[in-house]
Amino acid sequence: MKSVAALALAMTVAPVAGNAASGANDDVVAPALERYEQETLEKGLWARPGLSARDRSVVTVAAVITRNQTGLMPEQIRRALDNGVKPAELSEIITHLAFYAGWGNAMAAVDAARPVYAERGIGANQLPAAAPTLLPLDEAKEARRAASVEQTTGPASPGLVRDTREVLFRDLWLRPDLAPRDRSLVTVSALISAGQVAQVPFHLNRAMDSGLTREEASEVISHLAYYAGWPNAFSAAPVAREIFEKRTNP
Amino acid sequence: MKSVAALALAMTVAPVAGNAASGANDDVVAPALERYEQETLEKGLWARPGLSARDRSVVTVAAVITRNQTGLMPEQIRRALDNGVKPAELSEIITHLAFYAGWGNAMAAVDAARPVYAERGIGANQLPAAAPTLLPLDEAKEARRAASVEQTTGPASPGLVRDTREVLFRDLWLRPDLAPRDRSLVTVSALISAGQVAQVPFHLNRAMDSGLTREEASEVISHLAYYAGWPNAFSAAPVAREIFEKRTNP
Amino acid sequence: MKSVAALALAMTVAPVAGNAASGANDDVVAPALERYEQETLEKGLWARPGLSARDRSVVTVAAVITRNQTGLMPEQIRRALDNGVKPAELSEIITHLAFYAGWGNAMAAVDAARPVYAERGIGANQLPAAAPTLLPLDEAKEARRAASVEQTTGPASPGLVRDTREVLFRDLWLRPDLAPRDRSLVTVSALISAGQVAQVPFHLNRAMDSGLTREEASEVISHLAYYAGWPNAFSAAPVAREIFEKRTNP
Repeated sequence: MKSVAALALAMTVAPVAGNAASGANDDVVAPALERYEQETLEKGLWARPGLSARDRSVVTVAAVITRNQTGLMPEQIRRALDNGVKPAELSEIITHLAFYAGWGNAMAAVDAARPVYAERGIGANQLPAAAPTLLPLDEAKEARRAASVEQTTGPASPGLVRDTREVLFRDLWLRPDLAPRDRSLVTVSALISAGQVAQVPFHLNRAMDSGLTREEASEVISHLAYYAGWPNAFSAAPVAREIFEKRTNP
Repeated sequence: MKSVAALALAMTVAPVAGNAASGANDDVVAPALERYEQETLEKGLWARPGLSARDRSVVTVAAVITRNQTGLMPEQIRRALDNGVKPAELSEIITHLAFYAGWGNAMAAVDAARPVYAERGIGANQLPAAAPTLLPLDEAKEARRAASVEQTTGPASPGLVRDTREVLFRDLWLRPDLAPRDRSLVTVSALISAGQVAQVPFHLNRAMDSGLTREEASEVISHLAYYAGWPNAFSAAPVAREIFEKRTNP
Repeated sequence: MKSVAALALAMTVAPVAGNAASGANDDVVAPALERYEQETLEKGLWARPGLSARDRSVVTVAAVITRNQTGLMPEQIRRALDNGVKPAELSEIITHLAFYAGWGNAMAAVDAARPVYAERGIGANQLPAAAPTLLPLDEAKEARRAASVEQTTGPASPGLVRDTREVLFRDLWLRPDLAPRDRSLVTVSALISAGQVAQVPFHLNRAMDSGLTREEASEVISHLAYYAGWPNAFSAAPVAREIFEKRTNP
């Protein structure tokens, strides 16, 4: 057992947040967490099939940004880059979550990403343009979406209907540096992480229309159990089941 | 492109939290966010009619406190003061949210407000008394509210029923330094920001009884899409629609 | 009234977070909060019967960890130890919440607990083993639980079903350093604090099966009104009422 003085010294030398984020010294408070981290998360969850390590990082980054967990952000941003998420994709994930998780969450993520980008020498030439050429819009699909939102939301908030159309579906969703399938994966992960299951059906269907497989979607939920808590995963599961059943029984 | 060393130096000189909160250097991580901030938020959302800049600040401060977004608090508190929210009103907003968002959220807001109050020379003479003369109570209205809560909540938690009556409706809600209409605006904003739509009907009706117009309520929802995330706005919209319909079809 | 210079000095000397966490200087921003803290929380809530101070601390620690309120964590961890929560129990509470509130919440709690454990000389000999001898499993009860989850969740996420069985109910829940009744108390508190009422029935029933009384459960809800916000308490109350009615009308 370290002396109190030695611990105090250690706390002075190594920043507390950095320590805990990396899992180091968990044993000083909760020895089981170190075991769960090594065995259950690292050798278990992150290594198992069903969802690539790259996609697991997309899901985890979305979860920690949505839940505003500033302590986990630096390590998960580094891990995402290590797992093959491109800097431009990561920037788009943060930008996307400014709208789906809230402006302040994105600002906190920018804070966390800035030093990581600096330490890895990631510069403007690797980042998306502020106003790039947008992907082509599927006008028929967008018209159906707009009509549905107009019906449910228009009488309550015309401003929300307009911004959803102009800012989200005719701009944000068409930005080219994050594939539509990944943008949907981020959105679904954000919804589950925030316990917002009401909008999971629309976005999970959209994700699967864009190529997310049922096996991947299933594993997104079990992955998020660890990073957004079991209750959020349990709330998402029956919603996903209903989607899966409807899609396989055409 | 700045060199890594220059970036590291910049990070040393300017505190990271201050940077991101003001949106400066977003372009180092996500160039689009700078554009959205200038065009969509500043020239768009905050400038448009339907809700005064002062009310937008009340709503935004309520959102960032409810969501415990410590990074955005200082700038939004400054902005609220700039937009005409009085220091006494701001203090009451924080006090109100101690109960509607949770004690810890209010404590974090006190942390964020203290240096802003200090830098602006706001002192005790501009703040509400700890125990001021309360506004008169509408006993008939309060009796109806109490009866309703007694029915739904009394069998589960007599303590909650009693505290709701004594601490909230016979004390907090009657404190004079925040108008009832604004207190309701704060409450509705907190409920929407936390995804707690079940209690929106009671408080939105109360807000409109106290003078919040339908146009304002509608714009509260689209404003909160940006600061509490699209999913929370979308969850609130159908609830508000139902209230609007009931109120306009007597 | 202190001068601005004096305030700035005070802010330099005493860390802001430490100030607010202890409630000191609330009067500089919101004088009523100091009054509510002394009269309503300290002389009222924490002192009243129905729930022991020790259990109130278990509930409060669970709430602040679930809500990731890093500002309140140090003082509530100290208070829990003062109120008789053993270090080993506190470590298990944090470990438990890694799964029920999310991994990042537990990491933030480890951060907050580490210096408290250091200052009180709490060392490894007072902490639970990483892999202790587990409590015996009630196989029949677990088989019923597993069958129910398999039915609702299996078709959506086999991984979630397996992890719930292997990691939670055949490992975490059987760790001996936190009594099953307390583990359920932590879980119920986490669910209410996160506004996740859907899973309250299962866990509240389990808590009461393990010895939590109806009076205690009732007071958990009114206690959480203060630490998780009134809306979460109000959402939990009707769910609890239904449980109470079903259990008392066999």
